[in-house]
Amino acid sequence: MGLSPEPKWETMMTEFKAYAAIEAGGTLEPFTYDPGPIAADEVEIKILASGLCHSDISMINNDWRASQYPLVPGHEVIGEVVAVGDDVSHLSVGQNVGVGWTSHSCLHCSPCLSGRQQRCQTGTTTIGGHGGFADRIRVQHVWAVPLPDGIDLQSAGPLFCGGITVFAPFLDFDLKPTDRVGIIGIGGLGHLAVQFANAWGCEVTAFTSSMDKEAELTELGAHRIVNSRDDAAIKAEAGYFDFILTTVNVSLNWPLYLSALRPNGKLITVGVVPEPMGIPAFPLIGGQRVVSGSDTGPPDMVAKMLEFCVRHDIKPMIETFPMAECNTAIKRLKSGEARYRIVLEN
Amino acid sequence: MGLSPEPKWETMMTEFKAYAAIEAGGTLEPFTYDPGPIAADEVEIKILASGLCHSDISMINNDWRASQYPLVPGHEVIGEVVAVGDDVSHLSVGQNVGVGWTSHSCLHCSPCLSGRQQRCQTGTTTIGGHGGFADRIRVQHVWAVPLPDGIDLQSAGPLFCGGITVFAPFLDFDLKPTDRVGIIGIGGLGHLAVQFANAWGCEVTAFTSSMDKEAELTELGAHRIVNSRDDAAIKAEAGYFDFILTTVNVSLNWPLYLSALRPNGKLITVGVVPEPMGIPAFPLIGGQRVVSGSDTGPPDMVAKMLEFCVRHDIKPMIETFPMAECNTAIKRLKSGEARYRIVLEN
Repeated sequence: MGLSPEPKWETMMTEFKAYAAIEAGGTLEPFTYDPGPIAADEVEIKILASGLCHSDISMINNDWRASQYPLVPGHEVIGEVVAVGDDVSHLSVGQNVGVGWTSHSCLHCSPCLSGRQQRCQTGTTTIGGHGGFADRIRVQHVWAVPLPDGIDLQSAGPLFCGGITVFAPFLDFDLKPTDRVGIIGIGGLGHLAVQFANAWGCEVTAFTSSMDKEAELTELGAHRIVNSRDDAAIKAEAGYFDFILTTVNVSLNWPLYLSALRPNGKLITVGVVPEPMGIPAFPLIGGQRVVSGSDTGPPDMVAKMLEFCVRHDIKPMIETFPMAECNTAIKRLKSGEARYRIVLEN
Repeated sequence: MGLSPEPKWETMMTEFKAYAAIEAGGTLEPFTYDPGPIAADEVEIKILASGLCHSDISMINNDWRASQYPLVPGHEVIGEVVAVGDDVSHLSVGQNVGVGWTSHSCLHCSPCLSGRQQRCQTGTTTIGGHGGFADRIRVQHVWAVPLPDGIDLQSAGPLFCGGITVFAPFLDFDLKPTDRVGIIGIGGLGHLAVQFANAWGCEVTAFTSSMDKEAELTELGAHRIVNSRDDAAIKAEAGYFDFILTTVNVSLNWPLYLSALRPNGKLITVGVVPEPMGIPAFPLIGGQRVVSGSDTGPPDMVAKMLEFCVRHDIKPMIETFPMAECNTAIKRLKSGEARYRIVLEN
């Protein structure tokens, strides 16, 4: 309204410095772009740190046929608000915020009005615009979630995608503190799921192919560890679990894991399994066992998750790289050796 | 306790007259058996009518590898209590009751204690003993559910298996009156599901391959009818439903029906699909869509269902045959022409 205050004009004059894939599968290269005038409902964030997620790689490679190039990855952003649009009244310059998978939503469609803004029918994703491998980013105000006091800025980024992805199904599928939970795949997502489930009050079993992680998994909160490559060991878990969350992007022996569920047990995948899941009907019918999945979460839930993390001292375990070494970081992620999440720092 | 009253002695002296398959796939033949002394927790029921269900045929054929012969089918029994065991205090001789899939449960395992007696870890099924194609039957007291005033005795039998099978998922998966419901397969189960969903307050769509049933389906309570053999018609329903219940025992185009669900929509099968269901992960993850199944229901839920039926004038539409013509009735059911449920009468 009226004359724009100084910071906005300044922003219009400055190009954003980012790293982008110019084509599908490309190495990231320095890339600058002019974001234009800030929209009335946007905030501009000076990026402190940006997590690296498997879906950044999927998007770089156009695995989901939805990528547009130049593509700036990065959707686990931590930073400081440096400008706000004319209509933004609840966020201020200088405030620390985080950004995840989604950057804009209409706020008036049915998903938005019912508290599922991450499923906005016309929403855009952070990577769909220009993501967080950059010095700055702009997002719609609701997607810049204020960071609570006591949160560790350096490591908080991965909570905004990896974290909320495993936190949301616990809330939405009504995980109870009396439940026995199994977490399949202890990587970027799984190591957070183990911490959440432990803090939830549950008995936590980690299914992992890396049995050498045992001490670390116990430290994170796992009460039991099962070798995910040992079918006999999984078979021995028959009828044991109330809730199994799988975080891996590969097809599993679904009948075997279904057999590990109690009646009314739930098998939830957050891993994008490429092939159709061959689900036998009998264990579904015989005990109303549920197969489902989960995406990310709405801003209000992200805020609750952050509060939960502070209360229970839950943090992503990270390895850090300077932003300029983003290609090295991607190689490290692809190696499968990263424990457990990579964060790029400005 | 003490001296047995007269009816029990009389019962011990009388063989039960039934119809049984002597071997897998066999035609039903007259068969008598001596049930022995009545157990303390049992009631004896003089059978008035007994519904014929597809699972009777599956059991006759040993499709599920769980049949024992001679096998007396029949698990949708309506009759009158003619004797009660020593420990039965809440049922009386002369009372009308119904019996469904389960005949005995331990009442002390976790499923029993948590109100899921149909999943008793050591329970027995009605057909697993000797079922309802007979003049009499004995079951544990809790499985003889009293019939409320106002219920039609002749047609009520199918509620005890077909009815509760479609009623239970509506309750257990939290169907809401504001939901759009699709029912796939309008046969013995589906025609009851349509009535239930309508009385629930939902918008009801019938998926049927028999478009000539249109007037009848409207009468039953369907607001919309979609040809289940027309993939283009189903595709046009994309994102429409909150709840789809499938009652058919065949594999469907699962991705197509999943695409017909809204986010958080549920696809529930009560049909025993023989092949693994090929479920794509993306619609599960993208909107927390649920795939599950459902079996029958516990006695308390059966009682609630019967009350609901009386309140809303919900009745199975039946064709009747004399008990002695059970083989003819089975042929009729196999023809797929029965509208919608067959009841055998003594």
